Amino acid sequence: MNSNEALKISREVAIEIERGISKISPDDLSSEVGMGKDGTPTKKVDKVAEDAALSVLKDYDVTVVSEEAGVIGNGDIHVALDPIDGTFNSAKNIPFYAVSLCFSKSNRIGDTFLGYVKNLANGVEYWANETAYRDGKKIRVSDTSDFNCNAIVYYPERKFGFRRIRIMGSAALEICLVADGTFDCFIDYRGDDGLLRVYDVSAAIHIASCAGAVVTDTEGGSVNEKHIDMSERFRLVVANPKLHPLLLEALK
Amino acid sequence: MNSNEALKISREVAIEIERGISKISPDDLSSEVGMGKDGTPTKKVDKVAEDAALSVLKDYDVTVVSEEAGVIGNGDIHVALDPIDGTFNSAKNIPFYAVSLCFSKSNRIGDTFLGYVKNLANGVEYWANETAYRDGKKIRVSDTSDFNCNAIVYYPERKFGFRRIRIMGSAALEICLVADGTFDCFIDYRGDDGLLRVYDVSAAIHIASCAGAVVTDTEGGSVNEKHIDMSERFRLVVANPKLHPLLLEALK
Repeated sequence: MNSNEALKISREVAIEIERGISKISPDDLSSEVGMGKDGTPTKKVDKVAEDAALSVLKDYDVTVVSEEAGVIGNGDIHVALDPIDGTFNSAKNIPFYAVSLCFSKSNRIGDTFLGYVKNLANGVEYWANETAYRDGKKIRVSDTSDFNCNAIVYYPERKFGFRRIRIMGSAALEICLVADGTFDCFIDYRGDDGLLRVYDVSAAIHIASCAGAVVTDTEGGSVNEKHIDMSERFRLVVANPKLHPLLLEALK
Repeated sequence: MNSNEALKISREVAIEIERGISKISPDDLSSEVGMGKDGTPTKKVDKVAEDAALSVLKDYDVTVVSEEAGVIGNGDIHVALDPIDGTFNSAKNIPFYAVSLCFSKSNRIGDTFLGYVKNLANGVEYWANETAYRDGKKIRVSDTSDFNCNAIVYYPERKFGFRRIRIMGSAALEICLVADGTFDCFIDYRGDDGLLRVYDVSAAIHIASCAGAVVTDTEGGSVNEKHIDMSERFRLVVANPKLHPLLLEALK
């Protein structure tokens, strides 16, 4: 499988999910329908979206790691799948939630060859093979090194001095908004081991990296060796090469 | 003018704004086209939206208070107008920005007889005469008194202990999301005198109040005596009657 094929599959997955969730009545989106392999209750919108995604991916020789279903298949190519990143938003009709797919040649996220994130509410599409695109146009991170900038921070419980802080509820999309320069950085330093999962962020990490971002954990360590599995956790700092070291310093 | 007429006018305004901004090319949305009466640069999307709104409102005997144009007209009925609340989002294709209109029988926001907020990106419409509605259905605030809840906080630079924190970038819409129970509270305690303006929040304050919320400044004072003018500033706490006093306590 090459990146073109992976992109084609990703788009099929997105369309199947859109089709699936469009049939759910608004009042039913957040009803709970079981317990996910991530240890949290599964909402109907998650279940329907995941079933739709897996109905496409089952035809390929891949190992899928997904929020609700866990690990499926045993192909060499690993796919981190989040059918709906931003479930709360999707269930509440807040138009900021996405499907996220990351295709890697191994179980390391450093071997990713395609990252794909699509806002299912308005159709904006991000993807990267070695170059990063939004709706087919090349994108690039900002180049500011000034803290008087636009930041996504989970959670800003100390004073960093950013100009504008946002917390929108879909890490995948928010990291893509750093990739395209809308925001200048993404920081998530919650939890001792991190709260982000591989299916939330690995596709967006690849997209941001291809757009010129530096992506590390909150200690400055590479995330390339992180695995596409259910147990991996992330604390992340994503920013352009000038701003990134200043953020690490501020987090000390 | 009664609330039905004000609602009809609000909907006309929304449609004119949608028509106006749909003609702007995406790259041109955030180009600066002058200086607003609020003392900040006017972006093209703001100017086009305000011109569209005023083209409707000029036919009525009202006093309009608006972000870019300042005070226009001298009717007894005062209209606080924000043609685009969430300009940054609208300019960046983040689908979370709204038109906001507040109609009052005087220059006090306590005399409001219609509040109207519409998300221009997905068409979700909030309004209240004496009852609050979302897309025509009655809405009501949540009833939790637990801090393990969903909060909008500008900015959470201290640890409140909320379960989920969001900062979406349109105070008008965010306060409406408290009115309909999606979020449990809205807090903006930035600035000694507050950063929110009357056109940002007065319509949503009325909607939230009609949905059962308590709305005060951060000291617990009423906002009813606040004026519909360019100089008024707000620090706000919006929540259901059980949670609200606990938030005031936490802010001390």
